[in-house]
Amino acid sequence: MTTARKYNVEVLFTGVPKKSDFKIVEETLRAIKDGEFLAEAVWLSVDPYMRGAVNSSTIGNTMIGEQVAKVIESKNGNFKVGDYVAGMFGWRTKTISNGDRVRKLDRSIYTDDKLSTALGILGMPGATAYLAFLDICAPKEGETLVVTGAAGAVGSAVGQIAKIKGCRVVGFAGSDEKVQYLKSLGFDEAINYKTMGSLKETLEKTCPKGIDMFFDNVGGEFYDTIIPQMNKSGRVTIVGAISQYNLENPEKGTRVNRSILGKELTVKGFVVYSHLPRWPEAFKTMGEWIDKGQLKYNETVTEGFDNMFDAFAGLFSGKNLGKAVVKA
Amino acid sequence: MTTARKYNVEVLFTGVPKKSDFKIVEETLRAIKDGEFLAEAVWLSVDPYMRGAVNSSTIGNTMIGEQVAKVIESKNGNFKVGDYVAGMFGWRTKTISNGDRVRKLDRSIYTDDKLSTALGILGMPGATAYLAFLDICAPKEGETLVVTGAAGAVGSAVGQIAKIKGCRVVGFAGSDEKVQYLKSLGFDEAINYKTMGSLKETLEKTCPKGIDMFFDNVGGEFYDTIIPQMNKSGRVTIVGAISQYNLENPEKGTRVNRSILGKELTVKGFVVYSHLPRWPEAFKTMGEWIDKGQLKYNETVTEGFDNMFDAFAGLFSGKNLGKAVVKA
Repeated sequence: MTTARKYNVEVLFTGVPKKSDFKIVEETLRAIKDGEFLAEAVWLSVDPYMRGAVNSSTIGNTMIGEQVAKVIESKNGNFKVGDYVAGMFGWRTKTISNGDRVRKLDRSIYTDDKLSTALGILGMPGATAYLAFLDICAPKEGETLVVTGAAGAVGSAVGQIAKIKGCRVVGFAGSDEKVQYLKSLGFDEAINYKTMGSLKETLEKTCPKGIDMFFDNVGGEFYDTIIPQMNKSGRVTIVGAISQYNLENPEKGTRVNRSILGKELTVKGFVVYSHLPRWPEAFKTMGEWIDKGQLKYNETVTEGFDNMFDAFAGLFSGKNLGKAVVKA
Repeated sequence: MTTARKYNVEVLFTGVPKKSDFKIVEETLRAIKDGEFLAEAVWLSVDPYMRGAVNSSTIGNTMIGEQVAKVIESKNGNFKVGDYVAGMFGWRTKTISNGDRVRKLDRSIYTDDKLSTALGILGMPGATAYLAFLDICAPKEGETLVVTGAAGAVGSAVGQIAKIKGCRVVGFAGSDEKVQYLKSLGFDEAINYKTMGSLKETLEKTCPKGIDMFFDNVGGEFYDTIIPQMNKSGRVTIVGAISQYNLENPEKGTRVNRSILGKELTVKGFVVYSHLPRWPEAFKTMGEWIDKGQLKYNETVTEGFDNMFDAFAGLFSGKNLGKAVVKA
């Protein structure tokens, strides 16, 4: 008889999620059926989007999330014992899956020391950075990009991809350590928004030719302030809104629709799971950039399944550099 | 010696423009040079966008705007005496032009009784409706469109084009008379927003399958409320924001970027003068629809150059049905 441990969300989050909102429970797993396999978590992901995925209809459910897992039992010909997979199994140690929407990891790319990248630079955040930025921002050489949440898994990749494409890159992050990290990645300007003073003036100073592209992980005041300072025909990609996730009520901000009109901007939301068939295209190119040293990444590792909540809370306290992952 | 009369903007508008912000002045025109022609206004346009085009740097200038004019003197081979043209000549009775950005009107289309349509359904507003709606909203049969400012020159055309494309059309306007007009044009639902009560509930009731497309002339609360009720992959066209033009300070509204993200919306601003080469394509198709009786239009006519201000003020008091024009 196999037992799994998992995090159930017991209490609807109000504001920043609390440890007591979760309960770690044991679950006895049934035997696997034909077509199924049993996988054991090796790396688990915590991501900002998870905050918004919990609502009154999901209370009592296992917390959602992706993980890298090792197949330990199988009645599915496509997934053999010893294979490694990435799947949306949730915050749990063992999972029965039929292989639907599961990526089998190519071990020539995802070697032992790089398994966790399947949750980061060569996973969901990497695909988001690559596809959302290139599709929607459609960068042209010499253009200026502003990235918020720039030191995160997505933002740090977007800035580097923009540099590869010959753009000027201005990134905002929440600590001096992150600013140093962004400069080490080649960002033209990196700004600690907590100490910068006026955002409007900072933009004027760091974007002397205006802003052609805005890649937004944060929303809120950044969104309100950057949109009116964009150049004609600018492109805005929204992939996150971390400043808003923990609000009890939707916040008000200065309306920007007149700027969208007058500057003929394009503003688009992007959810990477709507573009699954194109992930391999992203990973192929990004893998080449990594091999050439053009694309760097960082991971903030938390040890232990029992510390998943702390890793999750770290997303909102701004302590992570690059991708936050948990080693099971 | 030729004399023109024109409206100068003497005072920067605050709130709704006032008659005393303008001054009608006489101007003595010089003789035309080679390559130029002199044209006399026949029809003048008043449009909401004009409100936003006045700023501190344009004070003292002639009020901008398009007009249909008759060539009365010419030293330009392309524009002969007796030709009719449409051009951005401003609020003035006579104009010297070198023909740059001037449309010579094809008199087989713009017959004597249809000259004013060069400012409306077969002019800037018509091109806006056709190009912005088809380009950005990209309608598919069976989808639902919401139009604000629906009884105006642009909105009334957009709704009818959407009906031609097989869509469900819900229009918002500011009087029962306008609602009746929209129903006569074939709108599936027409709503007087001044008496409807809750916008959110009205949308839920009139858009049972959600909102796929939103064509916005108004902005403000409409924008804030409609965006979160849109369907996945919805398209939003912003061509105006009349609710905002007369505000002294930018208004705050509930932030909608999380809805743009989660629903993967596309929001685009559209300025029709950036698409001048495509206007003839729009007029050709719309002319055919008019001939077949599929596309109707209305004009609210004010008589007399001296009453231009009243026609302009009518845009903001909501008294016009369809395109507002002034007969010189």
